[in-house]
Formats: sequence, structure tokens, C-alpha cells
Amino acid sequence: MRNVKRFIIPFVLILLLMNVVPVLAQSPDPNGSVTAEANPNAAVNFAWTLIAGFLVFFMQAGFAMVEAGLSRAKNTVAVLTKNLMDGLIGGLAFWAFGFAFMFGGSALASGLEQGNPFIGLSGFMLSGAAYDVTTMELWFFQMVFAATAATIVSGSVAERTKVPAYLAYSFLISAIVYPIYGHWVWGGGWLSTLPFGVGARDFAGSGVVHAVGGFVALAGAAAVGPRLGKYNSDGTPNAIPGHSLTLVALGTFILFFGWFGFNPGSTLAATDLRISVIAVNTFLAGAAGAVLAVYYSLFRTGKIDLALACNGALAGLVGITAPCAYVSPLSAVIIGLIAAVVMIWAVGFVERTLKVDDVVGAVAVHGFGGLWGLLAVGIFADGTYGDVSGLIVGDTGQIIAQLISVVVVAAWSLIMGFGIFSLLKATMGLRATREEEIMGLDIPEHGTPAYPVDPTASAPLGSTSSAD
Amino acid sequence: MRNVKRFIIPFVLILLLMNVVPVLAQSPDPNGSVTAEANPNAAVNFAWTLIAGFLVFFMQAGFAMVEAGLSRAKNTVAVLTKNLMDGLIGGLAFWAFGFAFMFGGSALASGLEQGNPFIGLSGFMLSGAAYDVTTMELWFFQMVFAATAATIVSGSVAERTKVPAYLAYSFLISAIVYPIYGHWVWGGGWLSTLPFGVGARDFAGSGVVHAVGGFVALAGAAAVGPRLGKYNSDGTPNAIPGHSLTLVALGTFILFFGWFGFNPGSTLAATDLRISVIAVNTFLAGAAGAVLAVYYSLFRTGKIDLALACNGALAGLVGITAPCAYVSPLSAVIIGLIAAVVMIWAVGFVERTLKVDDVVGAVAVHGFGGLWGLLAVGIFADGTYGDVSGLIVGDTGQIIAQLISVVVVAAWSLIMGFGIFSLLKATMGLRATREEEIMGLDIPEHGTPAYPVDPTASAPLGSTSSAD
Amino acid sequence: MRNVKRFIIPFVLILLLMNVVPVLAQSPDPNGSVTAEANPNAAVNFAWTLIAGFLVFFMQAGFAMVEAGLSRAKNTVAVLTKNLMDGLIGGLAFWAFGFAFMFGGSALASGLEQGNPFIGLSGFMLSGAAYDVTTMELWFFQMVFAATAATIVSGSVAERTKVPAYLAYSFLISAIVYPIYGHWVWGGGWLSTLPFGVGARDFAGSGVVHAVGGFVALAGAAAVGPRLGKYNSDGTPNAIPGHSLTLVALGTFILFFGWFGFNPGSTLAATDLRISVIAVNTFLAGAAGAVLAVYYSLFRTGKIDLALACNGALAGLVGITAPCAYVSPLSAVIIGLIAAVVMIWAVGFVERTLKVDDVVGAVAVHGFGGLWGLLAVGIFADGTYGDVSGLIVGDTGQIIAQLISVVVVAAWSLIMGFGIFSLLKATMGLRATREEEIMGLDIPEHGTPAYPVDPTASAPLGSTSSAD
Repeated sequence: MRNVKRFIIPFVLILLLMNVVPVLAQSPDPNGSVTAEANPNAAVNFAWTLIAGFLVFFMQAGFAMVEAGLSRAKNTVAVLTKNLMDGLIGGLAFWAFGFAFMFGGSALASGLEQGNPFIGLSGFMLSGAAYDVTTMELWFFQMVFAATAATIVSGSVAERTKVPAYLAYSFLISAIVYPIYGHWVWGGGWLSTLPFGVGARDFAGSGVVHAVGGFVALAGAAAVGPRLGKYNSDGTPNAIPGHSLTLVALGTFILFFGWFGFNPGSTLAATDLRISVIAVNTFLAGAAGAVLAVYYSLFRTGKIDLALACNGALAGLVGITAPCAYVSPLSAVIIGLIAAVVMIWAVGFVERTLKVDDVVGAVAVHGFGGLWGLLAVGIFADGTYGDVSGLIVGDTGQIIAQLISVVVVAAWSLIMGFGIFSLLKATMGLRATREEEIMGLDIPEHGTPAYPVDPTASAPLGSTSSAD
Repeated sequence: MRNVKRFIIPFVLILLLMNVVPVLAQSPDPNGSVTAEANPNAAVNFAWTLIAGFLVFFMQAGFAMVEAGLSRAKNTVAVLTKNLMDGLIGGLAFWAFGFAFMFGGSALASGLEQGNPFIGLSGFMLSGAAYDVTTMELWFFQMVFAATAATIVSGSVAERTKVPAYLAYSFLISAIVYPIYGHWVWGGGWLSTLPFGVGARDFAGSGVVHAVGGFVALAGAAAVGPRLGKYNSDGTPNAIPGHSLTLVALGTFILFFGWFGFNPGSTLAATDLRISVIAVNTFLAGAAGAVLAVYYSLFRTGKIDLALACNGALAGLVGITAPCAYVSPLSAVIIGLIAAVVMIWAVGFVERTLKVDDVVGAVAVHGFGGLWGLLAVGIFADGTYGDVSGLIVGDTGQIIAQLISVVVVAAWSLIMGFGIFSLLKATMGLRATREEEIMGLDIPEHGTPAYPVDPTASAPLGSTSSAD
Repeated sequence: MRNVKRFIIPFVLILLLMNVVPVLAQSPDPNGSVTAEANPNAAVNFAWTLIAGFLVFFMQAGFAMVEAGLSRAKNTVAVLTKNLMDGLIGGLAFWAFGFAFMFGGSALASGLEQGNPFIGLSGFMLSGAAYDVTTMELWFFQMVFAATAATIVSGSVAERTKVPAYLAYSFLISAIVYPIYGHWVWGGGWLSTLPFGVGARDFAGSGVVHAVGGFVALAGAAAVGPRLGKYNSDGTPNAIPGHSLTLVALGTFILFFGWFGFNPGSTLAATDLRISVIAVNTFLAGAAGAVLAVYYSLFRTGKIDLALACNGALAGLVGITAPCAYVSPLSAVIIGLIAAVVMIWAVGFVERTLKVDDVVGAVAVHGFGGLWGLLAVGIFADGTYGDVSGLIVGDTGQIIAQLISVVVVAAWSLIMGFGIFSLLKATMGLRATREEEIMGLDIPEHGTPAYPVDPTASAPLGSTSSAD
């Protein structure tokens, strides 16, 4: 906690300095009556954006279930605690700092006037001119995105990372790492105005959310090191099965469901009827990714690997997230298929080549899947929406902007990720002890197993014999 | 897979032939700007329909949890895999073929011009004139319905059916069986224009979705045969308990939640304010069905059977699905009560008279419950909506149309269901071996149990002793 | 059941008497065409309110998972059955009686004309003039709130209460206790017109829903008595761990998700753009509550208690429920932090001082958290919405109205709660036998354990050894 304070105090000072020059380009409308009068479509757009945001929030449950299921029972409470808290701490960090860094200067709503192409500088704590219904609507939707980026990391570092360090990480990614790259793409920053195509585009966040989360996850998993028993002395990996594929499947369904808020909601407007195309593309890419993974698994091993099918669906969803608004349904199917191929390759690359132990495949799904999504914009955008045209319609400019954003997001996330996790390692300590890891983190870090056994029952989990 | 190809190639040929004569009665509007300008209500109706569709999609998770919970632990991965994939494969099949067969000729949106009273013939792959925001909105909502019909079957054939055959089935029901009957009722086909009442009506799919799924499920369960140990040599059935009533309850809650997308969303428009009545009726029928099942169980055995309560709720929901828009709240309660009675009777009829082993009661809940829903339209429709009037207001025409659609849906689904499952049996093989079934399908078909036990822990599932 | 009849018959008589004088101040519009014509915003407001109501309905699943997880495996079926049925029975009770008692006389919609400041007297069974789309919309949203109040109690009385008595309780709280207090605050009753501030205000139900549920839960848990083994002979309590923290976390996520319907939906209108501020405040308070609980736990014990973190989030959510529309984001954070402090104190107060055994902490979270929410309105309301001003802006009138409603809700709920549970104890019997409680309620009351073990498998829950 001392370390967290070391970060907070300078930020608070910066925050206070920034507010010395009050800027009120737009007057705030805290109860919405002025906004509703000015824009008769505000009601339907607010309803759409908020409900979509609620669905995105629910994705936290999906991540929690997938990651808990893929972890061993003895680390389940630790996994669940991290998943519950990263989004909540991340949301508070985004309220205090992240949102201002990301959208300050975008002038998208009241209170967001100050900023430059590299960082935003207004909107802290939603106070002052940011106490406005439009600013709040934008904040809510963006906050659940920040929380998604934050929670991607928990899976890759599961089963050996200390929870206090992880909570500090949650604050830092949502306050700094995510919002600054986000500013460059969504806050009017330099990537969005690159002189190639229409500038870098990432409709719903293959890069901003998933690649950031995925490459910070790579840095985190590398920094904390592999679990005991993951690698043999010759460097070959061992599979360490989780404890419940039911939870994995449930979590995947929840994530897929939430993605319909994530992608279509990113129009921030129901009056933009492209939402229907986005919903269709989102489904098709996720379905195609799952189908590819299933038949890959079946043809290769004669068996269908359910966890791979789930990751195939998720990879397809990550891949379509950037291009969802710009492409046709047929392209969405192709993007989903390729995303699953990329994910399958990347799982092996991370595990065997990089020798990084990523418990759930987050780096492959979100990191590499996210990069593929950014590229797919430059390839498949068909020019019917947002003036974005890719190779498929003969435009070669957009792909350059996308390639630049690919390099930038990977570099930024890895550098910041290594920086944060190294700092945490040096200060709070990142990794549980060997004894704790063998025992499982639940008892030493949380004081209870996830599945306590009733000592008054004669058999575990209510089997019939306990009742007779 | 070879067999699937045998189906695909002729379809692709038909598809190409159909596109020889280009028909563009409506110009497509891929980004929605024309549609939004023409109809200021489009935004709220798109938002409503899409969000309702998202809820229906989430029902896939509900089916997965109910069916996994009612199956034994050793078959859980198989159940989950089937539930994950049937909707996704079904959705892709509906994209390539089903939607065109169902809505071609309906002229409900751009690209749906060609078709006849028996089958639709345009809209394949959402290409050409179907690349339109309204067509996409319609597709999305209809696709999640097709996926629901597909997934109903997995429960009835659980615990002994090979997964590759099941994946092929998923494609066929969504490409052919579901859409053709659907065309007759919802695509402007012959049942919808019967000269009785206003023609057959099925507001949200008691027949189109649930009875189709339920009677294909009956055919499937009959074709694959009962599980080992289900029937004694004298033909009396044994109960085979599943492994988690927690999953059953969770799944039932998710299904009930999703049903609020299923029924009210079927207006395809929030401007049709009858949505509130539909939501009320949906709740009341589900609640009444559960209450009837609970007190039936309590009075009959002195105990309350939770799985029966869940099936009672689901039966009430299935029963109200066709009449939800046409009846009063009091009628909804009565429809729900009767639906539960029908379900309880049908469970016994299927298990004892037909001697078909339906693991989850899908035939009773969805099949017979669906038929009851179709009849209920002809009985309880009160004439306040859609000009549909039943016996309750003295109109005797509508019930005739409903009776015809009852006979047609049962016959069509059984015939096509037996056809498909017989074909799969003769080609790919439908049933796991005796050894696999005894072992459980998870290891032989998926290579892992659903709940792997950590060999480094001293007791299963993180009990306290493993931590000390 | 005989006892339930004793209640029903007088009510039916009252109901019939009331309908002797027909009152039709507004004509009903059962299909909505008149309403849609009169109010072009009706579509978006119906869509918003209904979807929000669907999310609130889904909270039933959240309560079920949290309460099942915090109970021992041997009582899981009993917990799930109560959670499934209380909302469904409660909804039917609210249809027949509760809604009329709550909103009769409010004139909020057609069919709600008769009533007085103490009780409403029209709208029974949604019949007659209440067969109207606006009345139905209002009913649906209010019904899911009534169901929430009802289900709060199940957790506090878990693991020892007979299910038939609990079902009777579910009917009575939703038919009488909840609606009458609700009428006083939301139905135009006497608390809403107190001559202090603008009268008592409770935006989304910290008092109406949560405090009512929480204090009836206190009465219920006191009436049924502590579980065997909860208290030692010297009065000190023992912790009785539940069986799955995974379920607790999942349930908490679902509840948090549903709360975004609960609070923002309570505007009943998307045209009231304050919905965005409400969503923001809801998130921030829940997050702040969880963070406080996590660091309290960490600093006090060196470990993070996941169940306490979940209850911290829920306490923050309960606390913000009344003031969510009236306060700024910074106030929401403070309200959430204090709510968690109140909850932590109240858990000890209930367990150690009152010596009442509340299995899940419902009294602390919903009861005391709810009272804090009512007070917070009087403290933090900043005057930007609904003319509600608290101490923070120098207004001292509102807090008096809030204090009165605090006293009233606690007194009403405790008195009615003790009345109902005493009546049930004296008639149907409230508590399972000692033998049943030791065995667990699942076998004697439901005939099956939640997690049946497959006798043909060699190890429980599909462990690898069962498959080899």
C-alpha cells in the first residue's frame, strides 16, 4: 500500500495544478433537461449506450468464470477475487484519472476540453464541467471498457501472483496504460490522425482494449514467471488442467453475450443503424472462430477440445472487434476463421517459443487476436461505413495506419507492462512463495478454500451417502 | 464431414442458379442513413429488437446449464460442447441457407424478394441486396431463434450421442428443417394464409421454435435409443440423476431471463406498445407453471422436486410463447397452469408409453408445451391485438387454423427429424460405443473430464484437508 | 395450504366489494395504439423500462447463487427452490393483490384510481381498466422489485426453514408487507407527502425494497432461530462455511449487473437523461464498497475475504439505491464507502449483539444498508435533480423526512415480519426437525441432493480415476 501512495500523491498534485486554469467550453447539464430538449434522439441513444455498457460490465463475470474454471480448485478464491476487484478498482482509477487522460481534449462532451495529441488533461473525477449527463454516459461506457482491459491480465498471471500486487496493477493499468493508448486512438490523439487512410481505426477496441490487455498480460506472465511444474528441465511445457470446464463454458457464453454490448454499443448511438450489421458480424466471427477450433481439434486429435472451442469463439470475437463496423458478413466469417488460426498459433508461440506460462491463453486470444483485428480493418473494410477502405476495395493507405497502430500498441503495452510489473516486484513483491503456490493461494491469501467441505457431513458435496 | 459435404455441394449449386436472375425490388442500405432518414422510429426499434436478440442468444447458456446439470458428471464436457456448438453452427447454417429458405419471398426487407408459399429463395449469405441494415436486424433476431430450436435437441439425446454426428445435425436443422416450417408461418407461407381465422398464428414461436425443436428431439432420442440402464428388461424406466441441481436452477433463471427477449422482442418494434402486455403475460405464465409443478410435487410426494419446478416454469413459458401477444394476463396464468399439466403428463407419456429416453424432458416441455401454445391462441385470443380471436370471445375459425398448424408442425418435425437422424446413423454413426457410454463421453470424445482433479492436492475440489 | 386459504378468502371478498363501484377515470388502451399516438416518446420509455425490468428479474439468479454458495451443500436444493419460487409466487401475489394495494389511488396509469394515503384499492389482477399498456409496463417493473424484496429473506433463514412455510411467507410479503409500505413512499401515500423537504424520497428502493426485505429477514431469522451449532453455550458464534465461493462470486456479478436495471431503470423513462448519472453513481458506490471491504479485511487479517468483498459491493449498491439520482459521483463514492462500514458493523451487531443467525448477511447488507441509503438522500442530495436537497447543500428539511421513513420502514417491516413468521410457526410450522437439519434439508424436503453422485462411477464428480 505504501507503493500505491507513492503513485497517488504525485497524481493528485498534477490534478490540482491542471484545475488552476478553469475551462468551460460547454456548460454542464447535470439533470439532462437541456440535452433532451436540444436532441430528441438523446433518449434512445442514451438507453442504447447504457444498456450496451451494462452488458459489457457483465463480461467481468464471464472472465471470472473462464479463468476460475481453467485454474485449479486450490487457487479459485484468488482468481475470483482478482476478477471481482480488478474491474472495480480499475473503474475507480478510471474515474479519478484514466478518463481524463483518455478523453481530455477530445471535446466529446462537457468538461473534456483540455488535452493534447499525447494525453488528455480534463475530466478528473467527473467534477466541475464534467458533471453532465452526456459526459457521464460517455464515462460509463468507456469505464466498462477500461475494466475489460484490466481483467484480461488476471488469467495470464493466475495461480501464483499475490493479490495485493495485483490490486495495485489494476489501478495502474486503468489510470495510465489503457487510457493513454486509448487517447491516441479514441480521444483524438495522434494515431487517429495519421496521414494514411482516415488515420488508425479500431471500432470497438481489438487494439485499445484487447491488445493492450493481452500484451500487458504477456509482460505480467513473463515477469511473474511460470507456475511450478509448468516447464520441465528441458524446457518442454506440461499441461496443467483447471478444475471445471462447466465454468469455462458458462464464462464463454457470458463473454459472447456481453460482446453484443461491446461491439454494437460502440456506435454510442442507436440512430446509427449500422448497429445491426455490427451485431451480425460479431456473431458470425465468433461462430466461425469456434467452428475452426473445433474441427482443427477434431482432425488433429480425433477429439474435440472444449477449452479450445471456447478460445476459438473468443478469438473470433476479439478479431472482429476493430473491424466490426467496416466489413461485410462474409468478411466477418473470414476474419473469425483467421483469428482462430492466429490464436492457435500464438498459444504455441507463447508457451513453447517465448516459454511464458499464460494460464488461460489470454495473450493468444486477446493480444495476438487483437493485433489481427487491427490489421483486418486495413484488409477487409469495404468503404460502406465511416469512409474506411481496406485492401479488399483496392485502398492501400488504411493498412499502413493499421500497421503503425499494431506496432505501437504492442510496444506500448509491453513496455508499460514490464515497467509496472517490475516495479511491483521490486516493491510489494509479485509472487507467492513456493509453499503458498503448492498449497494453493486460497488458504494463505484468502483464508478459505473455494469449496469448503462440511465437517459434519460424511462425504463431500452432499453425495447421497452423506444424507443416509 | 464427407456427409456434410454431400449436402453442401447441391445447395451451393442451387444457390448459384437462384442468383442468375437478379432481383432488386428494394435497394440495400448498408450503413442505415437512408433508413434512419425515412423512419425516425427505426433507432428505437432496432435497439429494441437487437437487445431482445442478445437476450435470446444468452438462452444458449441457459440450455447448456440445465442440460449439463441434468446429465452425469462424466458426460458434462460432451453436453457443454454440443450446447456451445449447435447454436454457433446453426447460426452459420442460417446465414448460408436457412434465412433465405425462411424469409425469401416475404419481402420483409431488402434482398428477400424471391420465394413461394412453400420455400423462400433469396437472402443467402446476406449478400447482394441483403447487405442492408433492416435485413441484418431481421436476420440477427431470427438467427437466435433458429439457434434456440437447434439447441433444444441436445438435451434429449445427451449422454450417448457422438458429437460429430450432432454437429452435422445442428447444421441440417438450422439450414432446412427449422426454416422451411418457419417460412410457412412467419415467412408469408401457406399456413399463415389459411382461410380460418386470420390464418395460423404463432406470435413468438411455441410452434416454430419449440415444437420443431421438441419433436425433432423426440425423433433424435428415439433414433439414438435409450441410455444403458434407463430401461429394465420389463420396460420400466429408471431415474438417472444428473450431477448438479445448482446448474439446473441457474440455467432455468437464464432461460426465463432470455424469454423476455424472446417474447416481447418478437414485435420487432418498441413502437408496438403491446410489448408491456407480452412481458407481463410471459412472466405470469412461467410463474404459474412453476407453482403448479411445485404444488403437484408437494401434494403427490410430500417433497418439492426442484427439477420439476424448473420444467414447470419452462413449460409455462413455452405455452405462452405463441399466444403471448393475443391474451389477457388472467388467460396467461391459466395457459401457464395448463402447460405445466401438459408437461407433467407428457413426461410420463414419453418415458413410459413411447419408451423414449429424453434426458432433460425436452420433448415434454418444448414439444408438447409448444403444441399447447399453438392451441391456446385459438382458445384465449381476446381480439385486442392483431385481429386474432379465439373461442373465449366466441370465434371458432382461429382454432381450426391452429389445429392444422399443430398437426403440420408435429408431422414435419418428426418426419424430418427421423430422416436426419437415420441418415446420420447410416453414415457418420450416431451413438457412442457401449464402453464409451459406461466410461462417460468426456474422456473418449473430448480427452478430459469436466472436473479434473489436481493430482498434487490430497483431496478433491480444494477441501480443507488439501490445504493443510 | 389451509392457512393460505384463510388469507385468500377474505381478500377475494374485499376485492369483489371494491369492484362494486366501477371507476374508469382513464380508458384502458390494451394494444397501445392510442398511447403511442399520444406520446411519441412512449416507445423508448417502454423499451427502457422493460429492459431494465428484465435485468432486475435476473437478479433472482444472483440471489440464488450467492445464497446457495454461502450455504452448505446439503441444503443447496432447499436454498435454490426457495429462491426460484419466492419471486414467482411473489409475482403472482403482486398481480392478484400487491400492485393494487401499492399503486391504487396513485393515478399513475389506467385502472389505478382508487386508494387513500394508507393503502391502494384498485388494479387487482390487472383486470378491467388496468388492461392497459402503461399499467402493464408499470406493473412489470414494480413486480420485479416486489420479487427482489421477497427473495432477500431466503438467505437469512436458510438451512433450517421448511419450504412450505417459506412459500406462504413469499405470498404474504408480496401481497401485503411490501406493497403497503411501498404505497406510502411510491404510491402517493403519506410518507411521500411529509411536510419536510419534498417529502420522503427513495429513488430506487433502499428503503422500499432493501430495508423492507432486510428487516423482514431479521424478523424471520429471529423467529426461526439459529442453526444448530451456530452458537456455543456461552453465546459466542461459530462460522459455518458455505460450499462454493464460486457461486457467491457469480451471484454477486449477476446482482451488480442487475442493479443497472434496478437504479437507472427507476426513472421509468429514458427521456430522463439523468439515467447516465444514476448508472455512474451505481457503479461507483458498489466499487467503493467492495474496495473498502477488501482493504478492511486485508489490514485487519492480512488476508482478503472474498465473501466480505462481495457483501461490500452489495452494501454499496444498496446504499446508493435511494440517493442514486440525487447525488454527484464523488458523493456516490463516499456513500458506498460508508455503506460498507455500516454493513461490517451490522454483521457483528446482528451476530453478536442480537444473536440472530443470518446465513448470508442479508440483514446487514439490505436492512442496515437500506437505512443508510435513506439517510444518505437527506445528507448528499445536491439539488440538481427532483428538487431534493440534503445537508450538503445546507438544507435541513429533507433529512427529517428521511429519518421518519427510516423509523417507519424498520418498525413496519419488523412488526409485520414477526407477525407473519409467528403466524406461520403457529400454523404450518416454520422449522425443520433437528434430524432434518443435521441431515440437510435437501433429502427430506426435496428428495435429492444437489450434487448426486453417479453410483456407476468410481470417484465423485468425474475425476480422472473414474474414467480410466
